[in-house]
Amino acid sequence: MQPKKTNQQVVHGINALTSMLRRAPDRVVIVYIHEKLGRDRTARLTRQLEGCSVDVERVDSARLEQLIGTAKHQGVAALIRRVPPMDEGEAREYVKGLSEPMLLVLDGIQDPRNFGACLRTADAAGVDLVVTARNRNVGFTPAVSKVASGAAEVQPVAQVGNLVRFLDILKDQGLWIVGADETAADSLFDIDLNRPVAIVLGSEGKGLRRLTREHCDMLMRLPMHGAVESLNVSVAAGICLYECLRQRTE
Amino acid sequence: MQPKKTNQQVVHGINALTSMLRRAPDRVVIVYIHEKLGRDRTARLTRQLEGCSVDVERVDSARLEQLIGTAKHQGVAALIRRVPPMDEGEAREYVKGLSEPMLLVLDGIQDPRNFGACLRTADAAGVDLVVTARNRNVGFTPAVSKVASGAAEVQPVAQVGNLVRFLDILKDQGLWIVGADETAADSLFDIDLNRPVAIVLGSEGKGLRRLTREHCDMLMRLPMHGAVESLNVSVAAGICLYECLRQRTE
Repeated sequence: MQPKKTNQQVVHGINALTSMLRRAPDRVVIVYIHEKLGRDRTARLTRQLEGCSVDVERVDSARLEQLIGTAKHQGVAALIRRVPPMDEGEAREYVKGLSEPMLLVLDGIQDPRNFGACLRTADAAGVDLVVTARNRNVGFTPAVSKVASGAAEVQPVAQVGNLVRFLDILKDQGLWIVGADETAADSLFDIDLNRPVAIVLGSEGKGLRRLTREHCDMLMRLPMHGAVESLNVSVAAGICLYECLRQRTE
Repeated sequence: MQPKKTNQQVVHGINALTSMLRRAPDRVVIVYIHEKLGRDRTARLTRQLEGCSVDVERVDSARLEQLIGTAKHQGVAALIRRVPPMDEGEAREYVKGLSEPMLLVLDGIQDPRNFGACLRTADAAGVDLVVTARNRNVGFTPAVSKVASGAAEVQPVAQVGNLVRFLDILKDQGLWIVGADETAADSLFDIDLNRPVAIVLGSEGKGLRRLTREHCDMLMRLPMHGAVESLNVSVAAGICLYECLRQRTE
């Protein structure tokens, strides 16, 4: 078992590993599998590992627990390279390689819990890239990681200097920019999301900034039937992203 | 301005008031409207007030702020009667009166933030009734109210002694019991929710209890495409409830 370097971290759980190997196999340094874990449990993981040149080491319970810091693992873990969020240029190249992009753009989320919850939701929905503005969004604090439940380590994220300019770049790359706005005429359910999209959500209370809203191709409203003024931003994200998934599987 | 009694509380904001007057007009003791608030802002509220025999008082800024405890109002507030959650018998009668019920059943939510977030989401989706089990769900703590953002005061909630028995009562009343379960064969998008439904969500990590699951008419899976093992329960609620709304508006 090799010592962990400062630019490395541990992820564990079968979902986390398969997701990591699918999204960013070059970040995986070594995979640890419990010596007694049967092949039926790791079939998909093993198939994935055959496709890449990642070292695999069989370890016992004690060493796995020492590595992860908890006994609540699923018999698998990996050492991965920490990477900083992509900058504008890297994100541009990354989006180029996507076949049917689904992006989530966050316009000024300041609350760490909300940002973490958005990362968790985005990861679950299989979002290709979460885009934030460097100076208008909370960074990767421990609180963010905790709420994200493992998504902060694996969900691709970009931090761009100028969000509005980056939306224009995405448009040039063929994406439709769809903003959630309570004053929009169309409901979410009337918007065609079965195409390359970047879904843009504003902060709670404030919503989208005027400039951001003006750079959207379409605006959609989430129907509100109760007393509360708005949905939590991670709940709004879940509703929008899963509606996108639904339309794509129809 | 009449003094607030101990079994009364203040709600404010146009959404909160219109929602309260629609759902439980008999709980509204008196409505306060800012003396300078124009009729265009309160048109819907005024129409609703014409239909019921609720006292209305025009007040100035100072009195409104004193009543609400903040200057962040929308010029309207009301004194409402506090009501305890419905018990099994009351909930049964209440459901009888609904035309196309959409219920949310929470099977053992212990975290106050999650319960509050579920109330907020349920209220936004227009859920008729949130059902919890008395001994297996967190109660109405201040933390719940804070996260619920106003929904805790207006969202109808039932606390039943035996959740499984209550599901059987709902079945007898013509509702379909639909449980969210990660092992379900059908995806959420393949389930017909355009009928009287009670959507059942388990606690994070544990999911539905075996007995609860066995009492569901249908089970549905929320597609998971990432590293995280589950969605936050309020996000899952939002996805399920808005899919129900979508199907009903098609």
